[in-house]
Amino acid sequence: MKIVAFAGGVGGARLTYGFAQILPPDDFTVVVNTGDDFEHYGLHICPDLDTVCYTLAGLASQATGWGRESETWNAIANARQVGGPDWFKLGDKDLGTHLERTRRLSRGDRLSDITRDFCRAWSIRHQVLPMSDQAVRTIVRTAEQGELPFQDYFVRLQCQPTVLGFHFTGIESATPAPGVLQAIRAADAIVICPSNPWVSIDPILSLTGIQPAIKEKIVVAVSPIIAGKAVKGPVTKMYAELGITPSAKAVADHYRPFLKGFVLDIQDKDQVDELMVPALTTDTLMSSLTKRTVLAKDVLHFIGRLQPL
Amino acid sequence: MKIVAFAGGVGGARLTYGFAQILPPDDFTVVVNTGDDFEHYGLHICPDLDTVCYTLAGLASQATGWGRESETWNAIANARQVGGPDWFKLGDKDLGTHLERTRRLSRGDRLSDITRDFCRAWSIRHQVLPMSDQAVRTIVRTAEQGELPFQDYFVRLQCQPTVLGFHFTGIESATPAPGVLQAIRAADAIVICPSNPWVSIDPILSLTGIQPAIKEKIVVAVSPIIAGKAVKGPVTKMYAELGITPSAKAVADHYRPFLKGFVLDIQDKDQVDELMVPALTTDTLMSSLTKRTVLAKDVLHFIGRLQPL
Repeated sequence: MKIVAFAGGVGGARLTYGFAQILPPDDFTVVVNTGDDFEHYGLHICPDLDTVCYTLAGLASQATGWGRESETWNAIANARQVGGPDWFKLGDKDLGTHLERTRRLSRGDRLSDITRDFCRAWSIRHQVLPMSDQAVRTIVRTAEQGELPFQDYFVRLQCQPTVLGFHFTGIESATPAPGVLQAIRAADAIVICPSNPWVSIDPILSLTGIQPAIKEKIVVAVSPIIAGKAVKGPVTKMYAELGITPSAKAVADHYRPFLKGFVLDIQDKDQVDELMVPALTTDTLMSSLTKRTVLAKDVLHFIGRLQPL
Repeated sequence: MKIVAFAGGVGGARLTYGFAQILPPDDFTVVVNTGDDFEHYGLHICPDLDTVCYTLAGLASQATGWGRESETWNAIANARQVGGPDWFKLGDKDLGTHLERTRRLSRGDRLSDITRDFCRAWSIRHQVLPMSDQAVRTIVRTAEQGELPFQDYFVRLQCQPTVLGFHFTGIESATPAPGVLQAIRAADAIVICPSNPWVSIDPILSLTGIQPAIKEKIVVAVSPIIAGKAVKGPVTKMYAELGITPSAKAVADHYRPFLKGFVLDIQDKDQVDELMVPALTTDTLMSSLTKRTVLAKDVLHFIGRLQPL
């Protein structure tokens, strides 16, 4: 079975790791959000892309899910000593990625080509694609501070401002990166990972050509909300501030126009009846490496049941 | 006595350290070569400025003279792993300096202001000035590879190409940084540190306004060549390739038009008679922290003897 996953940061990365353990390289492609990319200290940083790659390569910090295992922090500590901002945690190993990516982008290389080469260097066998080679930037509209670039809202301000909405600058002119639409066309199913619908998945879904491409596909989403709480990040705070009760069902509603199946945690099984779409209830908390693979297998079996005979 | 020193990298930094131990902050200013500055991985790197500052702050590597003590190399190792060039040794702590300098330059701050703030953060009490806020770039003309940016010649190619000459792009439009001419005017003497005359000192001397400003001053140079050999770097190779026998005397000849006194190693005392300028022979090899201060004291006493009564 050929699968394309749409992923954001830590939660998405963990489920893609599970798929990568059970699907051969030709049968699994990850399309990663680049809406939270930004420039910092002159470097081009792709937080979600790096989290997915580090996770697939087994290089990610086990403790945080982002950044590198056995990381050191000498560069940012010394930048801070001479007055530099340190709200974004730039580890030394991680900096190596940003340095080389920035060097190659500045000589005109495409982000998708750079990502392919990095994956090869990290011995990642499956295809990882940035959603686009063009810059798309998630902007958070807030009550207190107006429009904020995503990382300012997410990291610098620790998600404290009240969210009024989102938009993605550059989205009209951006196109899916080479390989994205081809992978979707060849796929038996699209899995929307348990990532933040507003800021991790919507940028991908908003790209020209993506929604028409997935319309006839089996699209299955995995809820990032368990028992009304986010496993990680501000997703429930965002739902509440936008006037929607945060729940697995709210996530299903978000993806309603193209959703063919929904995976939610066993703790939320009482919501199944309201979903109006085939559902799988299972243990979705990927609290160990094994549980990532188990969840991926569960999702694959569920997709198998959704496929036409 | 008020002293202004012209300095390049390691040798210059070590003598300025000596002066900083014996002169009060108001009486000592270092003007540092920026001709070997370059852009690498999108970062603005100032090798000589950093060597001087790290040395004055007691942060420099004791083993190499450049870079930071107790340095780690995780960023460059990881950049190399994904295909990045690693010919220029970028330590993690050192990267902190380049990151913050690049961030501030890109928002329009002047290199001299940035350097002042960095010195304050590093508790450097004496004034350190980049020679100019405008970009001046040392280009090495070589027999084998044509024109090479300095760091390509010096670090990437390990000084292997045969030198035909040098020029400094941007020198015509560059002006001395704020404070440089004022410090020279207020100085009792100018000390040309034991740095490479061709690539560390000539860029400073080539700036508009510098030679007129030092013409009436006591200008004393310290030879970077001892017994026909460079303490460090390619200076003797450069002299030989330019058809000049490398020696202390050759260095004195280099600075002839404005030289009022010359300091050379005791091993070269047989050259004193040919110098045609007052000379001090002493132990000029700064192989310990103490010897830096001893040499600075020797140079100050020598200047005292050169001063008019």
